[in-house]
This record gives sequence, structure tokens and C-alpha cells, in this order.
Amino acid sequence: MKQESSEKLLRRIHSYIEKLPYMHEPEGLYEPVEYVLGLGGKRIRPVLMLLAYNLYREDVDRIFPQAAGIETYHNFTLLHDDLMDKADMRRNKPTVHRKWDENTAILSGDAMLILAYQFMMQDCPAGCMKEVMGIFGRTALEVCEGQQWDMEFESRTDVSVDEYIEMIRLKTSVLLAGSLKIGAVLGGASEKDAQLLYDFGIKMGLAFQLQDDYLDVYGDPAVFGKKIGGDILCNKKTFMLITALAHAGAGDRIELEKWIDAADFEPDQKIRAVTDIYNKVGIAEMCNQRISAYYEEGLRLLDEVEVDSALKVNLRDFVCGMMKRKL
Amino acid sequence: MKQESSEKLLRRIHSYIEKLPYMHEPEGLYEPVEYVLGLGGKRIRPVLMLLAYNLYREDVDRIFPQAAGIETYHNFTLLHDDLMDKADMRRNKPTVHRKWDENTAILSGDAMLILAYQFMMQDCPAGCMKEVMGIFGRTALEVCEGQQWDMEFESRTDVSVDEYIEMIRLKTSVLLAGSLKIGAVLGGASEKDAQLLYDFGIKMGLAFQLQDDYLDVYGDPAVFGKKIGGDILCNKKTFMLITALAHAGAGDRIELEKWIDAADFEPDQKIRAVTDIYNKVGIAEMCNQRISAYYEEGLRLLDEVEVDSALKVNLRDFVCGMMKRKL
Repeated sequence: MKQESSEKLLRRIHSYIEKLPYMHEPEGLYEPVEYVLGLGGKRIRPVLMLLAYNLYREDVDRIFPQAAGIETYHNFTLLHDDLMDKADMRRNKPTVHRKWDENTAILSGDAMLILAYQFMMQDCPAGCMKEVMGIFGRTALEVCEGQQWDMEFESRTDVSVDEYIEMIRLKTSVLLAGSLKIGAVLGGASEKDAQLLYDFGIKMGLAFQLQDDYLDVYGDPAVFGKKIGGDILCNKKTFMLITALAHAGAGDRIELEKWIDAADFEPDQKIRAVTDIYNKVGIAEMCNQRISAYYEEGLRLLDEVEVDSALKVNLRDFVCGMMKRKL
Repeated sequence: MKQESSEKLLRRIHSYIEKLPYMHEPEGLYEPVEYVLGLGGKRIRPVLMLLAYNLYREDVDRIFPQAAGIETYHNFTLLHDDLMDKADMRRNKPTVHRKWDENTAILSGDAMLILAYQFMMQDCPAGCMKEVMGIFGRTALEVCEGQQWDMEFESRTDVSVDEYIEMIRLKTSVLLAGSLKIGAVLGGASEKDAQLLYDFGIKMGLAFQLQDDYLDVYGDPAVFGKKIGGDILCNKKTFMLITALAHAGAGDRIELEKWIDAADFEPDQKIRAVTDIYNKVGIAEMCNQRISAYYEEGLRLLDEVEVDSALKVNLRDFVCGMMKRKL
């Protein structure tokens, strides 16, 4: 079977999304949609969908509408999440509620969610419409649940590691997993394969998000693309903070809680102090162990998918590339 | 064929919606959904869907999920519109962003829109899934477009009658029309009948909205249920204001514009002054003429629907009841 490289799939879906004809009156509603989708991004979810489909079928352009649908949905969540988080910038450009206003962000986001459904249904083969829309709807709802937990955790101090993992499963993993499963179903995969690819996506999503949390503390700012220490400054209950609170000695724990409660502090000083405690507790190693475990579990699930190993290389390489890890 | 009265359909769908199992963790996400759907309301859209279905088939409970879906969608628009309009109260209860906060209103609204899609797809017969979801998606997007025009008109002074009618067609009519068409399609109506019922819904929606505008000025506050003069106080570009500006003599026009521009005024005095100009220009008659015209056109379209006249009585009576008009 002829497969396309992930680079080529990315180029093709990127140009397909660029040419989508959403511009339409009233421009005040659709301009922000075009703006958000035009900000770019890595198009990870549509590429995953196409790679999963390409395990079973060659004619990837047949599911470009669904791939555009998943990307539109993802960008809708960024639009509304940025509004809820009062974020000023996204990909070095002002967010919609800054460039326009809050009402525009609300309503254009709503339109974008509906557009995501429209793309998802467009030319969807009747035989798998129900299943595809079922996966998409369930996933879309779970992502909202993840965002709700994330917001609730901000004001809680007793979040457990399990709760945190469940939150990132909902907020990040299910959409990667859903993209893979929809691609597989559209490609005609067996139920078992489709579920294995979904579970593979869940594990990789967890590894990916934990790595993002890790890089927020230990990353190279030039490579990471964001400022280091953002999570520490806003007391985000990441795996690292939760684990540090649980494993630190009495003195360090009190010190950590002092920094969490501090209303007035020098940012760099807080980042340095918290990182020092993380180092003492050995958080980096604990976090990396967890990342590796999810990563290995994910690869084992991919191994079980019943297609020729050679056909899985593209997908495997793409996900490893996401993780910036060697095989 | 056995039909059910609109009162009975209302009772049945009302109790179906009350028992829907949306409560689920995280409660912070789903409680507001339950709250909004529990505020009641006239359930006009699901009843219209059931009445249209009942023109062709008896087993109305077969489409309760779709009827619940259209009501969930309608309530989602109320939730987000109230947030955008900064409205404090809805059906004598605090709105979601007042009772909780703005982020809750955004995210619970998003979840509600997704839930609306879930209900719409639930047990939808495979044969008409594509058409039903197509009507629903197009309608949902048009309602957003109507809301966008409505917000844009607030800061414009040159809105024409045609533009106003197009705005209320999108914001109000298409959802009534879509409810009827989805009910008809699910009932197995011919394409022609389904379209006639859609067009009937459009005309009745326009008549209904214009009547609402009329009652905002000339209604009996005890019957209307809202304060009289709300549209006048916020300079809403209704059919009445647009027409008055177009037909008033030079002096009255200047007086009207003075009231529109006034930043500081006694509310009752503004309402009285604007109503006096409306009376002089004869706006009440012009508005009532327009209402009657849409109403008559709508009834003619219903007459053309190819089912026995006796079967149309329930639907006809229900819509006339909505308009509080005699046949």
C-alpha cells in the first residue's frame, strides 16, 4: 500500500485548511474563525487522523473534511480557553478577545464548534457516520470536562496525582486518541485496531503533557518556545508540584507551601526556590520515569495493531517526533 | 391516524427533558446545564417538531431525543446570549453568569451545544441522519449569524427594514422552521412538504418576532410578562423604530434622533415621547399590517402541505396560540 510521509500529509492538510471557504457574511462572525485557523500550529490532530487512516487506505484526501473538522474543533477550544484564561497572546499574535472583544470570542467560538461538526459530517461515508460522530461528540464533551477540572484545580490544594492524570487525559489525550480512532474507523480498521490506536493516543497524550510540564521547569527556553517557570508562578497543580508536596521533607514542604501562598514575590526568585526543592526531592527523575512508562505502554499498544510493521513506521516516527525522542 | 394534542405533547416532552440524565461529573460543568433547562419555558420548538412529525406518524416518542436536542440548543443560545447581553435575569431567576461566573457560562454553554448534537443524533434513524444533522447544523450556524447581526446593529444607525427582517429571520425564524422540518423529515414527509413546513415556520417566526416588538411598545404589561418600552430605552433598531425614522416628518425625525442620542433621560419620559411619535406616524398599523401579511402567507403555506386538513388543526391551533390570535 502507498503511504504518504507525515511531512507531506501536514503540507496537504495545511493547504486544504487554508483554502476552506468559511468566509461568509456576517464578516464579524467569520473573520475571527479564519484568523484563529490561520495562526497555524502543528496540525498534530489532523495529521494523526490521516496517518491512522493511511494504515488501512491510500486515498487520504477522502477524509480531509474530517481532518479539518478535528483541527477546527481544537482551535475552537483554544479560542474559548484563551478567553477563560484571559490570555493575551497565542502563537505570538493577540488572542481573539484582545484583537476584537469578549462577545466576538464567545460567538465566533460557538460558530467554530458548529463548523467543526459541519466538516466532520461532510462527505462522511454513511456506513460509519454514526460511529465517527459518536466518537467526536463524546470526545468533544470530555475535552470540556477536562477544562472544567483544570479550572477547578486552580482553587484546590488537595489535588491528587490520579486526579491530575485524569484531568490531562480529558483535556489533552482524548482528542489525540479520538483523532486516531476516527481515522482508523474511516479507514475500515477492525474494532480492536481502532481501540488499540485510541489507547495508544491516550498514553502518548499523557506522556506528551507530562513532558510539557517537565519542560516548563527544565526546558531550554530557546527550544521550548515559552517562558520557563510559568506553571510554578501560577501554582499550577502539575504532576511535579503535587509529587513534590507529597514527597518533600517537612521543612521543604513548609517552604513550598510558603511560596504557593506568597502574594508578593520576585518571579525569578520563586522559580529558583521551587526548582531547588524539586531538585532536592528528585522530581525530574520521577517525572521522566512516568513519561517513559506511558511512552513505552503506548508503543506496545501500537505494536499490537494488526497491520504490517513497515506500515506503522510513519505513525510511530511522527509521534516520537512530537515527543522529540529517539526510538 | 392518532394524533396527540399540543398540550399533551408539551407535558410529555417537558417531563422527558426533566428526566434527562445529564448530571455527571464534573458537577461544576453540568449543574448549570440542568439549571438552564430546568427554568422551563414554553418548549415551543420541541412541540413544533413533534406536531410536524405527528402529521405523518403516530409514534411521537421515537423522536423525543431530537425534540430534547432542539430545546437544548435553544437554551444554549439563551445562556450565551444572556452572557453577551450582560442580562441579569431569565425567567425570574439569575442568569448563569450571575449565579456562577462568566467562565462557567462560557464552558457550560459549550457543553450544552455539544449535548444538543448528542441528543440530535441519539437513535436517529440511519436513513435520515444525514438530512436531519444537515438541517440542524445549518440552522445552528444561522442562529449565530442572526445574533452577530443583532449585536452589530446596536452600533449602526442605518439599518434598513430588509436588514432587520433578515436578522430576525436568522435569529428567530430559522430555529422554528428547522424544528418543523426536522420533525417532518423524521416523520417521512415528502421533500416538498418538509420545505413547505419550513417556509411556514419562517413566516410565522417573522410574524411572532414583529408581534413581540409591537407588544414591547403597545402590550399590556400584565399579559406581556416583560416591562413595556425596553426596546425604546436601548434604541433597538426594530421594525418600528426603523419605519418611524423613515416615515416621520422632519420635526418628528429630529425629535426621535434627539431621544436616540440622549445619554441622560427619564426612562418613562423617553418611552412616552417615542411612543407619541410612533402614534403620530401610525407605526402600530404599519406593524400590524406586516404581521398579518406574514401570518396569512404562513397559513397559505400550511394549506399546501399534502396531508388531510383535519390533521393540520393541532399544528395550526398551536401556532395561532403562540400568536395569541384567533383563526
